[in-house]
Amino acid sequence: MDTFEAIHKRYSHKEGFLPDPIPLEHLERIAHAGLAAPTGNNSQFVKMVILPDRAAIARLCKVNPTIGLETAPAAIAVFTDPAMQAGRWDFQVEDYAAACAQMLIAATALGYASLWLDSPYFDTRKQKEAVSVLKGAEGYYLRVVVPIGLPDGEGSRREKIPYEQRIFYGTF
Amino acid sequence: MDTFEAIHKRYSHKEGFLPDPIPLEHLERIAHAGLAAPTGNNSQFVKMVILPDRAAIARLCKVNPTIGLETAPAAIAVFTDPAMQAGRWDFQVEDYAAACAQMLIAATALGYASLWLDSPYFDTRKQKEAVSVLKGAEGYYLRVVVPIGLPDGEGSRREKIPYEQRIFYGTF
Repeated sequence: MDTFEAIHKRYSHKEGFLPDPIPLEHLERIAHAGLAAPTGNNSQFVKMVILPDRAAIARLCKVNPTIGLETAPAAIAVFTDPAMQAGRWDFQVEDYAAACAQMLIAATALGYASLWLDSPYFDTRKQKEAVSVLKGAEGYYLRVVVPIGLPDGEGSRREKIPYEQRIFYGTF
Repeated sequence: MDTFEAIHKRYSHKEGFLPDPIPLEHLERIAHAGLAAPTGNNSQFVKMVILPDRAAIARLCKVNPTIGLETAPAAIAVFTDPAMQAGRWDFQVEDYAAACAQMLIAATALGYASLWLDSPYFDTRKQKEAVSVLKGAEGYYLRVVVPIGLPDGEGSRREKIPYEQRIFYGTF
């Protein structure tokens, strides 16, 4: 799909997904798209966990039941390493956000709907639980889970402020 | 350009640019690609300033002389509004980072090189100066300036950690 088409077609799918499984090759292409994102000082601390089927997602679902996770045939979890800093500054948020944005565009380009699902993991207890069910992630910080799949309907789009109200020329 | 091609072709261009001007239509397409990015709670606080020529960039250049800004025929500055919060949480960093990532991919898709130039503006004095030369931006926070143009050479790419070392399946 054309780059601009994918960028403008992407939306936050807050409804359910069809059960159709996603080929692992597609999930890897989406994860690779995220890893290709720029990182502060080229630190590349962002890591991905591919949850390729319902069984893999189910454990996470218990921590955070949402329609997206409960129906998605696959998901990708994005982690950063709080122990690592890129030089003087901490770019963890910038880095995972850029990676996530690229994954959402990649998923769209392959015909899937997706969602940036982060707020449940701001809760300290849920963060701990989520990391513990994704065994091996101890010490890493779960930033976002992206459910991916074919949407079970049209999917509502939220209103966008007209671009001309957010763009200025030369001076603000 | 195909979405995946643009995503994987993008790189941080840390060298100079050719003087060839960029059509305003291209700059607007790049800025729109940034504004199409998801924002926390759909808040859409991110704003862009298009610097369409050398005259517009020159003032910023005095604050922060780098080879990219000193040679780029155009740039786009990305701001957030620190006074605004999207509900309980502050998504300013996630929001501008997602917008910036999408702009870099869009610039690549149009054949341009670009750079995520943020660290100079972490300095409180430079932040203040940069905002003051972009008249009208008072009260907004300058997050990143993206110089855009045709590269003046091949442009060096930094080494990437092999993706298989950053991707895990089902468990971390």
